Amino acid sequence: MKLQTLAIVGVGLIGGSIGKAVKERGIAAHVVGIEANEVSAHWALENGLIDSVASDVPDQADLIALCVPSDLVPEWVVTLTDHPAPMFDVGSVKAPIVDAIAAMQAVPAQFSPCHPISGSEKSGPQAADASLFDGCTLVITPLQQTAAESQRICAEFWQALGASVVSMSPQDHDAALASTSHLPHLLAFAFMGQVTDEYLPLTGGGFRDFTRIAAANPDLWWRIMRLNRGALSEALDDYRQSLEALASAIQLGDEATGLALLRAAVAKRQAADEPQ
Amino acid sequence: MKLQTLAIVGVGLIGGSIGKAVKERGIAAHVVGIEANEVSAHWALENGLIDSVASDVPDQADLIALCVPSDLVPEWVVTLTDHPAPMFDVGSVKAPIVDAIAAMQAVPAQFSPCHPISGSEKSGPQAADASLFDGCTLVITPLQQTAAESQRICAEFWQALGASVVSMSPQDHDAALASTSHLPHLLAFAFMGQVTDEYLPLTGGGFRDFTRIAAANPDLWWRIMRLNRGALSEALDDYRQSLEALASAIQLGDEATGLALLRAAVAKRQAADEPQ
Repeated sequence: MKLQTLAIVGVGLIGGSIGKAVKERGIAAHVVGIEANEVSAHWALENGLIDSVASDVPDQADLIALCVPSDLVPEWVVTLTDHPAPMFDVGSVKAPIVDAIAAMQAVPAQFSPCHPISGSEKSGPQAADASLFDGCTLVITPLQQTAAESQRICAEFWQALGASVVSMSPQDHDAALASTSHLPHLLAFAFMGQVTDEYLPLTGGGFRDFTRIAAANPDLWWRIMRLNRGALSEALDDYRQSLEALASAIQLGDEATGLALLRAAVAKRQAADEPQ
Repeated sequence: MKLQTLAIVGVGLIGGSIGKAVKERGIAAHVVGIEANEVSAHWALENGLIDSVASDVPDQADLIALCVPSDLVPEWVVTLTDHPAPMFDVGSVKAPIVDAIAAMQAVPAQFSPCHPISGSEKSGPQAADASLFDGCTLVITPLQQTAAESQRICAEFWQALGASVVSMSPQDHDAALASTSHLPHLLAFAFMGQVTDEYLPLTGGGFRDFTRIAAANPDLWWRIMRLNRGALSEALDDYRQSLEALASAIQLGDEATGLALLRAAVAKRQAADEPQ
């Protein structure tokens, strides 16, 4: 794939990583960043994540990456309704975005809702990583009106960054991500809320791994968990049952039940490390 | 520190890592392993984690590392009551071990209860890592009868492996570890119990980090959580409150409360990464 001008709206961790990967892989002749935060924009330019900064998406852009928070995506899509280039977002919650856009009077066919299942507890262009999407899964949740050509170009772009592309409904995506990503964040944040400061020196590698996601951006995660609160609430209900079953077995000394639960959990976790 | 003969009872992950570190750092002239599992014993010998295999702790041992599961420690201490060498265990739960030994007719003064706060989701001598204790915290929870000389030698040994040694009561240790280690394991096991298999391809690095401890040995962790069920239950009660406060804020859209909880959690997690 060879683009002329890639426009990245929002040059934070994800936008900056896209810019860095695109430049390293020679996927676009020119990368333009649209970023309201002047410090981030300047840093991204100085460090070669983007080639130029603009206040608007230029007409000649042949692909537009909307790397703004989920709740800002619909208004950007409205702003760009008349731009002919295919565009995608990278929001972690898809149904609210897709629903808001589906409710528009004229649904822009060039918009493909996307979510790269990759990230970091870090944020900002300073944390940009050219290999962030290498080996990750990229989910496309097309609207009924999304043009096949937009989907094809967006998929080809993500594959060029090393991602495997799958397609599903926004609802299925949000239920899955509530379970595999938003719930773990909720649990890790709640866990850190409970730990006593004086215990922090008495921690090892397990603690550090388990709580790494609790170092993530709180404002970003508030928005994600709030946007996906319905699916998150269902995942949490399932989790409470799983937790109480295991906790009860431990307190009662019900070794048969407790060991069966632990062994099933361990087997599933070990399977997750095997190549899909 | 220079030992003549270090005896390691139980050559699994921890015992094997001690052997490997001791040999690499030249801390003992000879390392003898006492290991009922012949495959493990053979592997440890072939791969240089130990110098010889024995069925009992030899009389000439000048330090004894009891690297057996927590619930097997008291009977080993009884067996070795007449051995003059200082000895320590590495059990993750201290009060039950210390209580069982304190209840003996003659409490062996040469026994120092120890716990290196370090580990891995892996197990067995094949996973032995010579740097496992480098930079970790080692907790000693002495009995009233524990000889100062045993504590001194054990502390010196762990420092020679790179650990920082702290001393506290078994009860304080178990409350801290319930919060920082046993609870995260319980939560991660319960989380894996709840994840749907079909969602596993839709996971990223956050999921892998958060659930890594759920790949740990289920039998070992059943014993740890069961042994420390009192302190674990208290930590879980605190956790439920923390979780429900955050979950409730998300469902109600109480942004002030939710963001304050998230920001406090993130600040605490980021502080945990700073040098102590």
